[in-house]
Amino acid sequence: MVRFVDVPNMRRWLIDTGIERAISGIAETLEADFLRWEEFDKTARVASHSTVGVIELMPASDGRQYGFKYVNGHPDNPARGLQTVTAFGVLADVDSGYPTLWAEMTILTALRTAATSAMVARALAPAGATTMAMIGTGSQAEFQALGFRALLGIRSLRIWDTDPHAMDVFEANMRPLGVEVVRASGAADAVEGAQIITTCTADKTNATVLTDDMVAPGVHLNAIGGDCPGKTELDPRILLRGDIFVEYPPQTRIEGEIQQLDPEHPVTEMWRVLRGEATGRTSDEQITIFDSVGFAIEDFAALRYLASAVDGTDYCTDIDIIAEPEDPKNLFALVAQGAAAPSLT
Amino acid sequence: MVRFVDVPNMRRWLIDTGIERAISGIAETLEADFLRWEEFDKTARVASHSTVGVIELMPASDGRQYGFKYVNGHPDNPARGLQTVTAFGVLADVDSGYPTLWAEMTILTALRTAATSAMVARALAPAGATTMAMIGTGSQAEFQALGFRALLGIRSLRIWDTDPHAMDVFEANMRPLGVEVVRASGAADAVEGAQIITTCTADKTNATVLTDDMVAPGVHLNAIGGDCPGKTELDPRILLRGDIFVEYPPQTRIEGEIQQLDPEHPVTEMWRVLRGEATGRTSDEQITIFDSVGFAIEDFAALRYLASAVDGTDYCTDIDIIAEPEDPKNLFALVAQGAAAPSLT
Repeated sequence: MVRFVDVPNMRRWLIDTGIERAISGIAETLEADFLRWEEFDKTARVASHSTVGVIELMPASDGRQYGFKYVNGHPDNPARGLQTVTAFGVLADVDSGYPTLWAEMTILTALRTAATSAMVARALAPAGATTMAMIGTGSQAEFQALGFRALLGIRSLRIWDTDPHAMDVFEANMRPLGVEVVRASGAADAVEGAQIITTCTADKTNATVLTDDMVAPGVHLNAIGGDCPGKTELDPRILLRGDIFVEYPPQTRIEGEIQQLDPEHPVTEMWRVLRGEATGRTSDEQITIFDSVGFAIEDFAALRYLASAVDGTDYCTDIDIIAEPEDPKNLFALVAQGAAAPSLT
Repeated sequence: MVRFVDVPNMRRWLIDTGIERAISGIAETLEADFLRWEEFDKTARVASHSTVGVIELMPASDGRQYGFKYVNGHPDNPARGLQTVTAFGVLADVDSGYPTLWAEMTILTALRTAATSAMVARALAPAGATTMAMIGTGSQAEFQALGFRALLGIRSLRIWDTDPHAMDVFEANMRPLGVEVVRASGAADAVEGAQIITTCTADKTNATVLTDDMVAPGVHLNAIGGDCPGKTELDPRILLRGDIFVEYPPQTRIEGEIQQLDPEHPVTEMWRVLRGEATGRTSDEQITIFDSVGFAIEDFAALRYLASAVDGTDYCTDIDIIAEPEDPKNLFALVAQGAAAPSLT
């Protein structure tokens, strides 16, 4: 039997746990996994592109557990009432190869992306940051806002989205939570006075949601929307002014903002910064850029956290997905009744 | 909602359908997919190796549907009561990126492997073949035997396995089905008089279950056990004497018997033979070798066949794995109750 966390159970678990507590827990697991980065069997995700979107598989293993996520990205989905991103994931036992947990990950991905962004910003953002600009207020936005409040104490947000409805939704969701939300008149207005800028838009194009003049010295840029070949958000001049931090270079070179740069352009792996083996922020004037595309170890950590959180609770059910004949060399016994004698064939 | 076929439903569906009818149906879907090979987005499977086994993801897409299989291979599993191979798979809609079917595939993989072997043998084996030797009688063996009976009319089997228990199980399973089973004293004895030889052993080593002198002119070799780097079954001299047919060369070069040969050694893609664009068997003396490793399009075809077979029946249930907020830009609404006002954080 494999434990299964469907959407209703994920919702119930998250509501009972609290979103900020869950993001903080995932961030803790995530940081522990970043600190043992070298133990992982890592691979760039396997993407299947179509004209309307992408479907990806993201596997990772630490030699004891194996995990993967299925995730799609379809920017035109909301126009017909569907989610841009949906996801599910599996954990398995490396020793036996048997799956152990299957979980919805549309909601869990939002949590792990917020946890990753906030964990990285805690290491790179200027000390004493109080205000974050958010360019793009889609489905990820509230989770980002709560992640930055939980880990960095950010309580003032300046938002901008080309879709006024997305801003309406965000404001309505955040206002009751004691977060100050200022609705800007454009991206340039949104970044005014912000020490952190999060870009998270969905268009599968080389867009420029932030131009070079909008990025003041000292800012930390949390660039999470550019995550696909041909899908970027930043003016490349910003990238040349700042120091760039990434998850897994072989994947980010293909998918991240740095696809716009020379393939040899220097980047720093974030796990090295967390381990103290590479420098992060070194001055008040420095622009730090987290060119985040989402990496499999983050999903692995989120699944690992979820597995231990739901273990022994009723937030998961058992599903029968592993054929287990009494004699392991006799799989046929399970279906022998379906084999007919020659007179019947 | 996603349709879900768990192990009990897969068993019930297969028993009600009949194993040979299911294998024939999959072979038909498979042949249709091989005939439109060029339409597929293809990639070699993504393997995560450990000292005791391998876990693999096998994706494929025809531009309308996307499918992948999770499968492990752990040769030491049976010694502790576990299956060597377990699997599950997913179909999804390329247009939306949403999954549509989730199914157990331990049983389904046995069916699709048998369907693939028999479909290929139907094209390559000598005309009028009546007898098949089977080296290795583990979990796949009965399905192979029934596949070859259904598609080629093979009714006489000569078997060999280093584990006598595996032969006991096979004999007990097959005898009631009107198939003549001769238990050989070794591999050399098993191949006597056989026009087709199937090798299907599990050891993750470069083994030699068949030596060059055992392979007579005119034989068709269905080599399905060598399917991993460092896991082969055949004396390489056999490969040099015969003509080699493969599924997807970039994967077979790494995983198949031909990993023992020069990377430039000529091989023929099986889809080209089925399309009449490449020659298959050209003489009675020719040795034809299907160096089969299992390719994602085969799983895709099996899932496609299953999906249409269970559609609208009670062989599947609905599971709630896609988070669907009423407003697609408001994922947060599903869990907003889990966000606390500042006094509670």
